[in-house]
Amino acid sequence: MSFEITVDALEDLARGAAFLGTGGGGDPYIGRLYTQEAVRRYGAPRILPLADVHDDMRIASIAGFGAPTVQVEKLIRSDEAEFAFRRLESLLGHRIDAILPVEIGGSNSMLPLMLGARLGLPVIDADGMGRAFPELQMNCLSVNGMRATPLVVVDEHLNHAIIDAGDDRTAERLTRALAIEMGLRVFIACFPGTGLQVKQAAIGGTLSVALGAGQAIARGRRAGTPVQAVVDYLCGAEPYRYARVLFEGKVVDLERNISAGFSSGVCRLESLEESDSRAEVLFQNENLVVRVDGQMRAIVPDLICIVDRETAEPIPTHALRYGQRVSVLGLRAPTQMRTAAALNCFGPMAFRLPEPFSPIEEIAE
Amino acid sequence: MSFEITVDALEDLARGAAFLGTGGGGDPYIGRLYTQEAVRRYGAPRILPLADVHDDMRIASIAGFGAPTVQVEKLIRSDEAEFAFRRLESLLGHRIDAILPVEIGGSNSMLPLMLGARLGLPVIDADGMGRAFPELQMNCLSVNGMRATPLVVVDEHLNHAIIDAGDDRTAERLTRALAIEMGLRVFIACFPGTGLQVKQAAIGGTLSVALGAGQAIARGRRAGTPVQAVVDYLCGAEPYRYARVLFEGKVVDLERNISAGFSSGVCRLESLEESDSRAEVLFQNENLVVRVDGQMRAIVPDLICIVDRETAEPIPTHALRYGQRVSVLGLRAPTQMRTAAALNCFGPMAFRLPEPFSPIEEIAE
Repeated sequence: MSFEITVDALEDLARGAAFLGTGGGGDPYIGRLYTQEAVRRYGAPRILPLADVHDDMRIASIAGFGAPTVQVEKLIRSDEAEFAFRRLESLLGHRIDAILPVEIGGSNSMLPLMLGARLGLPVIDADGMGRAFPELQMNCLSVNGMRATPLVVVDEHLNHAIIDAGDDRTAERLTRALAIEMGLRVFIACFPGTGLQVKQAAIGGTLSVALGAGQAIARGRRAGTPVQAVVDYLCGAEPYRYARVLFEGKVVDLERNISAGFSSGVCRLESLEESDSRAEVLFQNENLVVRVDGQMRAIVPDLICIVDRETAEPIPTHALRYGQRVSVLGLRAPTQMRTAAALNCFGPMAFRLPEPFSPIEEIAE
Repeated sequence: MSFEITVDALEDLARGAAFLGTGGGGDPYIGRLYTQEAVRRYGAPRILPLADVHDDMRIASIAGFGAPTVQVEKLIRSDEAEFAFRRLESLLGHRIDAILPVEIGGSNSMLPLMLGARLGLPVIDADGMGRAFPELQMNCLSVNGMRATPLVVVDEHLNHAIIDAGDDRTAERLTRALAIEMGLRVFIACFPGTGLQVKQAAIGGTLSVALGAGQAIARGRRAGTPVQAVVDYLCGAEPYRYARVLFEGKVVDLERNISAGFSSGVCRLESLEESDSRAEVLFQNENLVVRVDGQMRAIVPDLICIVDRETAEPIPTHALRYGQRVSVLGLRAPTQMRTAAALNCFGPMAFRLPEPFSPIEEIAE
């Protein structure tokens, strides 16, 4: 059963998606603003459950690409996504029937809705990873045989390029080089494929869960327990089914730099209750690993989400600030994200982390 | 009247083109090797005088792109140029009737001949600048309204991208970023246009002059005066009609680095006769300016050519070595290369040189 996302639901959805975006996937406020505008103007996009996708539907994805720290400063013209999508269609020689979000994240969950509203196309209730990741090849679509290319990359002047590479890791390198030259806030149309491919490779239900997580936070705020509310909701929600608070504390140190086309760094936290307990979260656009008093508590591809400890407002890595009082939450990654092939593509080694992958639920035991 | 370039003529042509390439345009030895191989295998390409190009012919260019210092170390697979050309044809939706060299230079004059031999297409006796230049927009085609884009860039793995930018300077930036990521030895198919456009924008006769210059050097070697022979030939050859020796000496200092995707540096020379006379030649892939005892003697777009003083063998900037005994020659640039619009695009300011443009023949008076 397909359903519609109304303007009223967008705020919850944006917040929930920013939560699942584990610090990345673009800025939720900006993503929500342009999606609200599109929904008001063109009407609400239809959300299509993964199970309702026909095998022979023609699918493609749209995403912002670059560094979130740049996105919050550099304005868009608003028709880049449509331009990239149309260019991809003309290259493929056929219309695209539905839009698949590449990732769940602050603005990269919103952008497909914005484009779906503009073009009158359904958006599939699924994505490539059930979270956000910094690099193009880091998703279950690539791991399961889909290809990001041909890929259209476009900047705010509509300068654009079509990338066709031997593999998605090379496509990432080439797209990143262009994105840096274009100013690190670009849009890509990518992952052209069929409904059958998407049903075999994508992670279903994640837009619905993002909306549910946002609604849980809203309900929790009214009850005064938003962090607990979202943890409780996610413990019962497919495809995650496990969530817990890993640390509560204050941001006491923050290193962040934009290099090689990413926002990377480390956020250090100090406990408010026991002053000798400390934590650190490493990130590359998204949060990668959390260590509490030197002990690893969660690591990619499991989800690490930093939220305001009073309101459960998700804090993207680019919005982390000294003095913020936060809760660090961990979520179990969807099962498809933990296969050997998946870990090879976006497990700890892909980020040069020294720790091997260890499931969050086993670490906790 | 069109004519054919035989295997025997290739050596003279490659040498003459390397001479007019003012130190750049790719390595002449490597360019000659793969062109010889193609001519032996597929037959000689037909050279089409600019005047014989029909208005409605479909033209495009092919070129190596990157840093010559890398070209001499990194092997090619040999079908990159054809791949790029076919990709451009498929993008344009029509076949291309003739190949226009973008520049005259060591290998970038050879590559069109190699492709012409492979594909059985004529090569136009003309180019975009009558010399070589390091950046994509630095040519009379761009200055006179033709566009480098859509442009196909391809590496030795056939990873490729199609660039479409608002202007050729932006296309240069984007192509350079990709070329750096691809390893600085790539091929581009570019400047799609009509015969009419090419006749209005290109510089005619330059392949013939390259061949003539190479033959003059060969004749001069037999007479023991190759440097004078090529100077004499060029003084009578359109579109240059002016050449002179600016300095003779020994390479005593050489700074060269590969940065921002170019081979840049400065070559310092000391006179062999008067030990207090010194010269310096600045280069960015190609030679840009020569100063003798602090006085500017020639500057872009006029041509500055460094040759072995005994054999008149052109020395590309990447082959300059300490201790070489050389003659530095200056040539008048073709008239179309000295207009205000042309100087704005590739005059001294475009290379951040402090001197304004001054015609070589006026400096000498």
